[in-house]
Amino acid sequence: MCPPRFIESIQSPEISRRNLLKFGLGAAVAAVAAPLTAEAATATRASFRNVADLTHLLGTQFPLFPGAAPFQITPVVFHERDGYYGSILNYWEHSGTHMDAPVHFAPNGLFVDQIPVSSLVVPAVVINISERAARDPDTVVTPDDIRAWERRYGRIPNNAAVLMASGWGARAHSVELFRNTDSSGVMHFPGFGKDAIDFLLTERSISGIGVDTLSLDHGPSTTFAVHYTLLPTNRWGLENLANLESIPPSGATLVVGAPKIAAGSGGPSRVFALW
Amino acid sequence: MCPPRFIESIQSPEISRRNLLKFGLGAAVAAVAAPLTAEAATATRASFRNVADLTHLLGTQFPLFPGAAPFQITPVVFHERDGYYGSILNYWEHSGTHMDAPVHFAPNGLFVDQIPVSSLVVPAVVINISERAARDPDTVVTPDDIRAWERRYGRIPNNAAVLMASGWGARAHSVELFRNTDSSGVMHFPGFGKDAIDFLLTERSISGIGVDTLSLDHGPSTTFAVHYTLLPTNRWGLENLANLESIPPSGATLVVGAPKIAAGSGGPSRVFALW
Repeated sequence: MCPPRFIESIQSPEISRRNLLKFGLGAAVAAVAAPLTAEAATATRASFRNVADLTHLLGTQFPLFPGAAPFQITPVVFHERDGYYGSILNYWEHSGTHMDAPVHFAPNGLFVDQIPVSSLVVPAVVINISERAARDPDTVVTPDDIRAWERRYGRIPNNAAVLMASGWGARAHSVELFRNTDSSGVMHFPGFGKDAIDFLLTERSISGIGVDTLSLDHGPSTTFAVHYTLLPTNRWGLENLANLESIPPSGATLVVGAPKIAAGSGGPSRVFALW
Repeated sequence: MCPPRFIESIQSPEISRRNLLKFGLGAAVAAVAAPLTAEAATATRASFRNVADLTHLLGTQFPLFPGAAPFQITPVVFHERDGYYGSILNYWEHSGTHMDAPVHFAPNGLFVDQIPVSSLVVPAVVINISERAARDPDTVVTPDDIRAWERRYGRIPNNAAVLMASGWGARAHSVELFRNTDSSGVMHFPGFGKDAIDFLLTERSISGIGVDTLSLDHGPSTTFAVHYTLLPTNRWGLENLANLESIPPSGATLVVGAPKIAAGSGGPSRVFALW
């Protein structure tokens, strides 16, 4: 599927300078920032008649990565007293179904508001490892999983988001089940393996990856190798995705409603699949 | 354009009960909540090759409605000290390009997380009143504007989002220009007129409306008649949209990346147009 044409939004001169600065940092970065004009001229249409919501409900009960500040919503105006209702929100950026922007693990990476729109509306590739994850919660997506997907569905499209469906989304109602922490305090849930990321970064052209667990790295990780390998190349990560089993493994378009917050390192995102 | 088919996300029993309660409140509400199964069977495909970002950058400088608490982003982990970077966010829900959920002005209205996905991926109708707004900042969208749009582009599609393009998006870099407050403290910017909302609610079937200004009601409003007319019917509003002049008046699909926050009255949203 060829990517659609992107009408970039108006950016402030300050942001443009920041982008230029970042985009000058290396070849991998420059590739992400390359103008889409040429692709635009030959783009085919994407189409859909189905929409799925890949976003969990975010509230005070949603499982957070251990140590994160709690999610708070505090009503400050009220129907009876004020004639309308609304709240102040207070939360750690990496809560709920959310984006890890490149800068989250890369000092020179893009802030969330700098991720080009062309990397937020992209082909979705769903790699389902649910059966293995049910037996082994520490399992990871491997290069073999990716090759198996390609044998069935063809080469991963350029600019794709590669998404791990592990069945973990169904556990998100329970902090205990979602973290799956053992008696030593080690968490057990699936993620991407570093060699799968190496393969995707060197052999394919992707915009980002996504998981239905608390972290791009699997639960027992202490090195966060996937974060530190992926994000400095200015690809993004999505964590705590929902309903990945409900969308086709190939052919959907992912629409990532990431927050457009200045200097943000990511944040709660509304994510849809269209196909 | 027929609406696409929606795969609703898995909802907790609690949320389902809340939805059922709300959906029992009246005919207008019931219409919004009607199952989409019948439409799904005859849905045609929507397609696109262009994407535009209708979202302003949200930071500490973005113009707020007077009296709102300031937007705050506070870094709490740092690359050099912690090996990664991230912030705590603290803000009033109705900041930046954002959603007014029905409950914002209706005690029995839907919370933002309860708005069905079928109301968030919808046909976009853009009514451009920029020329008039340049002469008269207090101007409003009227039933005549809607009829003029329909004479040119055909009847407003069912489930559409009706969006006002007033040219005001280009002022969002300046609190002074965006609010346009006079020496008496009265703001002057365009919005929808109540009679246009009455027309849309009684004669057409819409999912919501959007404006490129600070409020669905125009600047001088003291009654917020548009808010109080629209939102209790469980339609939503979008405020502070960007780049509405860059999308076609007819034929685009609006994708509203509203936050999926429990008990939220709305919130910063990533909004794209696809066509």
